[in-house]
Amino acid sequence: MIGPGDEQSVAAAEVGRLVAERGGVVVCGGRGGVMESACRGAKDAGGLTVGILPGDDRSQANPFVDVVLPTGLGESRNALVVAAADVVIAIGGGYGTLSEIALALKAGKRVIGLDTWDIEGIAPADGPEAAVGAALA
Amino acid sequence: MIGPGDEQSVAAAEVGRLVAERGGVVVCGGRGGVMESACRGAKDAGGLTVGILPGDDRSQANPFVDVVLPTGLGESRNALVVAAADVVIAIGGGYGTLSEIALALKAGKRVIGLDTWDIEGIAPADGPEAAVGAALA
Amino acid sequence: MIGPGDEQSVAAAEVGRLVAERGGVVVCGGRGGVMESACRGAKDAGGLTVGILPGDDRSQANPFVDVVLPTGLGESRNALVVAAADVVIAIGGGYGTLSEIALALKAGKRVIGLDTWDIEGIAPADGPEAAVGAALA
Amino acid sequence: MIGPGDEQSVAAAEVGRLVAERGGVVVCGGRGGVMESACRGAKDAGGLTVGILPGDDRSQANPFVDVVLPTGLGESRNALVVAAADVVIAIGGGYGTLSEIALALKAGKRVIGLDTWDIEGIAPADGPEAAVGAALA
Repeated sequence: MIGPGDEQSVAAAEVGRLVAERGGVVVCGGRGGVMESACRGAKDAGGLTVGILPGDDRSQANPFVDVVLPTGLGESRNALVVAAADVVIAIGGGYGTLSEIALALKAGKRVIGLDTWDIEGIAPADGPEAAVGAALA
Repeated sequence: MIGPGDEQSVAAAEVGRLVAERGGVVVCGGRGGVMESACRGAKDAGGLTVGILPGDDRSQANPFVDVVLPTGLGESRNALVVAAADVVIAIGGGYGTLSEIALALKAGKRVIGLDTWDIEGIAPADGPEAAVGAALA
Repeated sequence: MIGPGDEQSVAAAEVGRLVAERGGVVVCGGRGGVMESACRGAKDAGGLTVGILPGDDRSQANPFVDVVLPTGLGESRNALVVAAADVVIAIGGGYGTLSEIALALKAGKRVIGLDTWDIEGIAPADGPEAAVGAALA
Repeated sequence: MIGPGDEQSVAAAEVGRLVAERGGVVVCGGRGGVMESACRGAKDAGGLTVGILPGDDRSQANPFVDVVLPTGLGESRNALVVAAADVVIAIGGGYGTLSEIALALKAGKRVIGLDTWDIEGIAPADGPEAAVGAALA
């Protein structure tokens, strides 16, 4: 059985793989779910992954994070994920993702959306290939 | 001529006044626009106002902030505005406000909306009186 | 029996009182020990106190903090105590205090020392009266 | 002519090289001086380097940083350098370094000192080999 969460997970892994193949670094919040899938995809393609964790314990990181950065900042670390990024690909619809979308748009960074919040300023993509193509254009 | 911005400003001043009258403290980003209006309203009612500034220069604060807190954190300070709040009243539709809405909902805090983003989880209010009533209920 | 800790507590209360009497606001980390003493002294003199907490729970604050600011940033919040201050009076010798001394000197802010670390750049004072006098000069 | 700064630079490069040779990752503030030397040494040995920048512009990084993390947090980012580290090797005597020493000791992390502040709790080393040996023990 595959639910919506699983579709996002598959998409995230594909995004991670494509970013890595094109020489990009995957920076994310470093934990499970969509973040883990994106990191796993990137590692499958031999890429580099960075996880900026909310807590101060590096064991929080998913196993596909190369550079584990515990912060101890809680959800305030979302701002750092955005600050570290040249462009943001938002996947899925949690509030943490929404905060990252908002901070990125506030900073004037491009945000590509995949199955995420419908916020003015996001450039929606209809799949991983289109999303990564737009991001790295 | 009064545009939407001015209506929000009037609403924010009224929210500030009502919060102060009921013994609440107004915590905001400390700068101009809606933030300044809310602080002005609170001071008109003899209340206490706190401004958590993005920069490290206290002269950034609007003149109605009692406790000026320069942070030097840039927009990352939005997380601190939320962390400092018991409940959030979101007024208007900028991306900074959206980031605060998202972080508050992520933290499980109540968000009352006045003429703001249409995000699941916000409790919309139809005016300052209803917003403050809901916030301090 | 009065140990060194108690002497620092007495000094901190006196510093808080004097700052408040001269119209200053006491900003500190908001918790117990020297922080609580400084806040208590300021409140005894009718002053305003601000506590910037490491956690996200306002119940961490000592009972003499007027403006309680939970941050959820852990010890990273020390930088905010410094950023919020015009001048720093360092009392006692913990590592948290040392980090605040260092960040303040890095930012070019004046640091007055009372029974604290011997660091180049600190202006030592021989008592609360001298410390507050130097700070508010 | 070689002054104290140059000696520190040589020591930092050697520390970076040794950390990399033993499989460690160099995490630092990402800018010039001792930070740049440590990164250069690590890259000479094929290692990985991470630079956590104060500003929001990745061009601030020295050319030997692999993973550039702009933060926009100013000197508050020092706390993140410490949070990201398993062990801290402090080289030289600036106030930024002192803040990192203090935050690391506050967090209970080991701090190895090379020609740095004389603070209780630092384990002094008499050269790069000893410092890295102690750090990775």
